[in-house]
Amino acid sequence: MPHPLLDKHRSTLDGALRTIKTRGYWSAYSEMPSPKAYGETAAEDGKRAFEAHLGNHFELHQAGQTGWRGTETSPYGIELNVQYPACDVPALVAAAQAAMPAWQAVGVDGRTGICLEILDRLNKQSFEMAHAVMMTSGQGWMMAFQAGGPHAQERGLEAVAYAYREMSFIPERSLWEKPQGKHPALVMEKHFQVVGRGVGVVVGCATFPTWNSYPGLFAALATGNPVILKPHSSVVLPAAITVRTIRQVLTENGLNPDLVALCVPASHEATQALVAHPDVRSIDYTGSTHFGRWLIDNCRQAQVYAELAGVNPIVIDSTDAYQAMLRNLAFTLSLYSGQMCTTSQAILIPASGIHTDEGDKSFEQVGSDLASAITRFLAKPEVAHAVLGAIQSDNTLRRIEQAGAGAMGQVVLAPQSLTNPDFPKARVRTPVLVSCPAADESHYMHEQFGPISFLIKVADTTAAIALAERIVRTQGALTAGIYSTDTAVLDAMTQATWRVQVALSINLTGGVFVNQSAAFSDFHGTGGNPAANASYADSAFVANRFRVVQRRAHPSA
Amino acid sequence: MPHPLLDKHRSTLDGALRTIKTRGYWSAYSEMPSPKAYGETAAEDGKRAFEAHLGNHFELHQAGQTGWRGTETSPYGIELNVQYPACDVPALVAAAQAAMPAWQAVGVDGRTGICLEILDRLNKQSFEMAHAVMMTSGQGWMMAFQAGGPHAQERGLEAVAYAYREMSFIPERSLWEKPQGKHPALVMEKHFQVVGRGVGVVVGCATFPTWNSYPGLFAALATGNPVILKPHSSVVLPAAITVRTIRQVLTENGLNPDLVALCVPASHEATQALVAHPDVRSIDYTGSTHFGRWLIDNCRQAQVYAELAGVNPIVIDSTDAYQAMLRNLAFTLSLYSGQMCTTSQAILIPASGIHTDEGDKSFEQVGSDLASAITRFLAKPEVAHAVLGAIQSDNTLRRIEQAGAGAMGQVVLAPQSLTNPDFPKARVRTPVLVSCPAADESHYMHEQFGPISFLIKVADTTAAIALAERIVRTQGALTAGIYSTDTAVLDAMTQATWRVQVALSINLTGGVFVNQSAAFSDFHGTGGNPAANASYADSAFVANRFRVVQRRAHPSA
Repeated sequence: MPHPLLDKHRSTLDGALRTIKTRGYWSAYSEMPSPKAYGETAAEDGKRAFEAHLGNHFELHQAGQTGWRGTETSPYGIELNVQYPACDVPALVAAAQAAMPAWQAVGVDGRTGICLEILDRLNKQSFEMAHAVMMTSGQGWMMAFQAGGPHAQERGLEAVAYAYREMSFIPERSLWEKPQGKHPALVMEKHFQVVGRGVGVVVGCATFPTWNSYPGLFAALATGNPVILKPHSSVVLPAAITVRTIRQVLTENGLNPDLVALCVPASHEATQALVAHPDVRSIDYTGSTHFGRWLIDNCRQAQVYAELAGVNPIVIDSTDAYQAMLRNLAFTLSLYSGQMCTTSQAILIPASGIHTDEGDKSFEQVGSDLASAITRFLAKPEVAHAVLGAIQSDNTLRRIEQAGAGAMGQVVLAPQSLTNPDFPKARVRTPVLVSCPAADESHYMHEQFGPISFLIKVADTTAAIALAERIVRTQGALTAGIYSTDTAVLDAMTQATWRVQVALSINLTGGVFVNQSAAFSDFHGTGGNPAANASYADSAFVANRFRVVQRRAHPSA
Repeated sequence: MPHPLLDKHRSTLDGALRTIKTRGYWSAYSEMPSPKAYGETAAEDGKRAFEAHLGNHFELHQAGQTGWRGTETSPYGIELNVQYPACDVPALVAAAQAAMPAWQAVGVDGRTGICLEILDRLNKQSFEMAHAVMMTSGQGWMMAFQAGGPHAQERGLEAVAYAYREMSFIPERSLWEKPQGKHPALVMEKHFQVVGRGVGVVVGCATFPTWNSYPGLFAALATGNPVILKPHSSVVLPAAITVRTIRQVLTENGLNPDLVALCVPASHEATQALVAHPDVRSIDYTGSTHFGRWLIDNCRQAQVYAELAGVNPIVIDSTDAYQAMLRNLAFTLSLYSGQMCTTSQAILIPASGIHTDEGDKSFEQVGSDLASAITRFLAKPEVAHAVLGAIQSDNTLRRIEQAGAGAMGQVVLAPQSLTNPDFPKARVRTPVLVSCPAADESHYMHEQFGPISFLIKVADTTAAIALAERIVRTQGALTAGIYSTDTAVLDAMTQATWRVQVALSINLTGGVFVNQSAAFSDFHGTGGNPAANASYADSAFVANRFRVVQRRAHPSA
């Protein structure tokens, strides 16, 4: 008998299962923050729910609580002062593990149904979540709503769909009858149990606290594992809201809420103790390559799914839509001040310039036209603030300053500080463009996170493709782009991306951007270059999070 | 258009795809070495083909050949003297990699069809392979035919089916149309390319040179990767025959045969150089935990699928078929002189004895009855030699001697040397049974590979289950067994196997044995305890051997 929550959300699951196979467009949760989709009072209710957290204790009733801890500062400069449960790490892990057998007993259908219910409830909280994501990560409002809410939920749903598909292949029971010629057949009755691997830890990042955490969270949960969410110390509230909702749904379904917990460690050492705990069997991580490598090297008891730093290249060979190309790039480089793991950093342009529908453009001209396009795009303050958001970290602020001071090459577009009238203390910066010859690898051949992009002068298009390939091979990349009107060039770039395993966007001149990926259709990361060892989401992302334990016996007479 | 070889073997693939889902009985290749299945002359042809290898150079026309190398000695004491190509490791890897793009271009259907053709051709060589496996591994004839031939081929087919299923989920192309309200939809045309990860190395073991190698070989190959087979230095011929056949089929299909190569390294250091080569991206390994750990620790550039040592436990609580239980165990402990990674090593029996249909039996009585059952089973020399085969390695011989001399506990059944009339120099030993209290962990708490089993006296059934669980948790196990007439005991054991993730066989008293697993139905290993980090086969075994590289563009008008 299917679980009632699986019945309730069956059409959502079916939509996801259908679309991960066809990879066309499909959406489960409305990306428009409209009363029609979310209800007349949703916007106001969500704002109030967010404001109710400020200055308060965020009660979760977790195991091993020893006190309260608050560590957030808002890039928008507002006071947050939320206090979260400070919990003893071994107690959290033990409580999570104690909740695991009952979660296993719920079975594949039950776990899937409950995950779908959780996602549905999170969706209804999208406004509350949007404020939480915006005020902690520095995203602009619309991005915070979309990427923090429905798009993150869809990445979670996608992981649930992959997990469900793989687990559904395992029959609960089979009858094995092997003919023995004239003798009676050998008959065995076999049972197959899907078993989670153990506690999963999801380590969140400071820029996309839900979008980058939900795939691992829901993949681990759906496959039978407890999960401890360890958010970035400066971006906790979105994870806390998520954990509270999950614990509520678990409780409503008669399950032990300790299956999912929030961990806000006191120190980096406490974080290391959490991830290295022998009962932690999977770690989903988004963040610096430094700590990611530490996890892979030191947490050998666990499978590590890691999204690390990268340098995303774009090759510009030629275009038949010069202005549209510039507008597209200007948006990409400005969105959330380039604080996306998918933002292009290395823009490779032949020294001799490019052919366009507006005639030939020199290397320098392309740079200055792109600078103008960015300036034009951000000319209206309301557009600028909506698109740029605020700078999340001090390190990014410092990098912008250094790049603006010419430390990374010749400044083509200097960064500007803007004042956000709604949030006077917000730290807002416009993008920096610098230019350098391909030989100056020390500038661009490692991630410069934030709104810093390099116009790199290469000998010709062939050299540009070769450099793009080497960048991806050595530094990793989540996205690559090319502009060309020449099929042979597009083919050469395509083959380069096959070799180094990076997704390619070709001649984007409209409303799709290289730094955006759509759930169910675009794989986020290939898992095949240094920027990530896994993809959101594919079968490999879920299949090793559970194991199958069989038992067999001759059927009783 | 489907590939002609996929068409040719479609029903075989369909059978495999159906059965990995239902997990009932199905067979693709006949396990009976009969003229009806294999042709009137197959037995004689196969024998001659095997004999033609002896004393000769095994020509493969591989890249980087520098000479010849022969390292085998037969456990049956016959002269082999086969010389294999000695090849430069970097040259082999470079040649394999050069063959990869064309293999990728064949596509999912083409690769699957060619893998199915290879398996079909290997199946037709089953007699030749049986002699090669028998004379190198020491298996008895029937096991060498079945496990070396059709059963190994079916494990390979199973891997192909899993790979095909996962790759088939990836559409070659999709149209993504996102509605934009009153504006025209955003439309992207997307292409998805399945790309192998790079050179796979398959490191074979000395006891099951094909059965344990074909899953990794075919999983890697089907998913688009070149493969280098590195057989155990004393068991090369089965791998060489396999490689020659694969290279023939590749050539017939217009492909570069260097995609698959045999590597017979000059030294352990040369093997290490092979597996640590930066272009090697997957390693399938069966063998000692020592080298397996080395691979996992040192070959960080590759994914390692490892089957390592283990200690397989059986709990005897009670039985309603005492004689049948003893016969079943006697066969399990005797088969191939216990040189199977699935043979039971630790037999846990309550100190107070067990209830049976023949009345209560003391701990000592069970031990002596099992010893008698083994002696009875092996009483006829022709049965003994067919079942026992020969001892593969000097180390195993030494362990048998030590156990027989009482170094591992009280000897309940002493090993005997037998003389095989057909192979007077064969080294044949009957099983050793020793008995010890549970406290003597130094004896049994690590793998004692070969025909050495421990009757372990535990306080009671609860303690037996707890000890079995601890054995699996700390030492790993591929199989576990229990005999009990008590449902509560079976439930407790079942739950223990869920916790430590090991397959359980319950009350085996007929023609199915704890150490045997059937392709398509039984998972071999769970991948969830120290005996193996992967299972033959499941989705996790294939899904991370390829990546998907997408490209997207607005459709041309």
